[in-house]
Amino acid sequence: MRERQIKIGIMAPGSRIDRDLAQRATALCKSIYKDRVELSFHKQCFLSSGHFAGSDATRARAFLDIANDARFDALWFARGGYGSCRIAEAVLKGLKPQARKKCYLGYSDAGALLAGLYSKGFKTLAHGPMVADLNRDGGERAVKRALAFLADRAPTALEKSVRRGEPAAAFNISILSQIIGTPLQPNLAGHALMLEEVSEHMYRIDRSLFHITSNAKIRKIAGIRLGRCSDIPANDPEFKQSEEQVARHWCRVSGIRYLGRADIGHDVGNKIVPFGRLSNV
Amino acid sequence: MRERQIKIGIMAPGSRIDRDLAQRATALCKSIYKDRVELSFHKQCFLSSGHFAGSDATRARAFLDIANDARFDALWFARGGYGSCRIAEAVLKGLKPQARKKCYLGYSDAGALLAGLYSKGFKTLAHGPMVADLNRDGGERAVKRALAFLADRAPTALEKSVRRGEPAAAFNISILSQIIGTPLQPNLAGHALMLEEVSEHMYRIDRSLFHITSNAKIRKIAGIRLGRCSDIPANDPEFKQSEEQVARHWCRVSGIRYLGRADIGHDVGNKIVPFGRLSNV
Repeated sequence: MRERQIKIGIMAPGSRIDRDLAQRATALCKSIYKDRVELSFHKQCFLSSGHFAGSDATRARAFLDIANDARFDALWFARGGYGSCRIAEAVLKGLKPQARKKCYLGYSDAGALLAGLYSKGFKTLAHGPMVADLNRDGGERAVKRALAFLADRAPTALEKSVRRGEPAAAFNISILSQIIGTPLQPNLAGHALMLEEVSEHMYRIDRSLFHITSNAKIRKIAGIRLGRCSDIPANDPEFKQSEEQVARHWCRVSGIRYLGRADIGHDVGNKIVPFGRLSNV
Repeated sequence: MRERQIKIGIMAPGSRIDRDLAQRATALCKSIYKDRVELSFHKQCFLSSGHFAGSDATRARAFLDIANDARFDALWFARGGYGSCRIAEAVLKGLKPQARKKCYLGYSDAGALLAGLYSKGFKTLAHGPMVADLNRDGGERAVKRALAFLADRAPTALEKSVRRGEPAAAFNISILSQIIGTPLQPNLAGHALMLEEVSEHMYRIDRSLFHITSNAKIRKIAGIRLGRCSDIPANDPEFKQSEEQVARHWCRVSGIRYLGRADIGHDVGNKIVPFGRLSNV
């Protein structure tokens, strides 16, 4: 019996990618899955319009081309950067019922779109590696993990705490901060909220965690699980608190439980966190 | 007849200042107002605790020492940096009725406290120069303007659009963004909202303006008046939109009126914007 082919549509909601990256990802996928998994890069991924991979309208259309096409099993974000929030309104307005039947995977800037989809009741959303993670040292590990999740929902790809079945969600700290109090902010009541950051000063991480934990709806989460905060620029003067001390501080102030560390971050170790209950995935 | 002396209490809600700065500000004040205006620097201004001018508890106490002391006519913020949001809750809890009878002046990070006080119904709050502006090239101009406002409510110190009597408020873009959806977010319905920024990449200005203009309560403002956005680091790739194009974009998307430019910013030209109606001041 021939297995059904899995078709993964790829678009870039923020910054563009090169064709070379797409070719390397396609070759890696083929080396593992032969013809069982097909990566289909939307031509929008390679466009350039100032900061973005094409205009807002072009990027929103590319998202909807994949999301609303029943032939695709998944929409995989190519890369972060910046731009998801600019297309979220058009994307959410243009979704058709069949868009609910596929899986969406990405992180960082793409979190703004995952948040909006979660607010709309989409069930199969996950925080995890993107195509551009292949550019990291050892990035094959991250991309293989994403493919193992997209192709087979491999349990080994998952962040270990989510395997216990508690509802969870994961975000970049800056991205979640910048959707607080907007229609994109999802209802995370009862969820373990995993948070990670990259390339932000400690005082900014502190300020964003003040912001996130001061929101009344966020205070209904089950707790915060802190992912990795990497490439933190030097603070002047020295901040004298680690990211864990900062997270524990804001948990104490806000009455939110601190649940420990999460195995996520802007790195090749970034594990996959499905949104909501694992049984949805 | 001897004129009543005006007593201005100074504290640092975020970063510390040097004693030399305090001495220079005191000498400048004396050269203009003789004994009619007295600057009283709280000793907390000179403390150091990691990033901050003393611990959160110490800074909150210094604020309340001045705010709750009826002998002071004004509380003037010494400097921005980062730290106001960390003390806002303790400050707002500790305020006594006499705290409502004085004027509060500052900007940048201190906007988080001004916002919280405005939410509590305080009437005499203003966005304008702080003591540390004396360290800028030509900074005397800024500090003289602040003193002219604190001592005499000099109309020449005011941002010109506020003289027409429309309710207004002014904030640093990042600071307002990071209190959206928290108890510190003030009700700005019907206000002209002036916004300024410094040292943020254009993509971050864009993201913060997405955030601010996506909030349902913010959409009730009379419009946005854009202050100066200075020292913007180079965007990679080039953003290809100016801050005014970015502000106009988000006004168009959100249905908020774009009212033109405001004469405020992180510079010596920074004019004073009283919160609410000018008749309150």
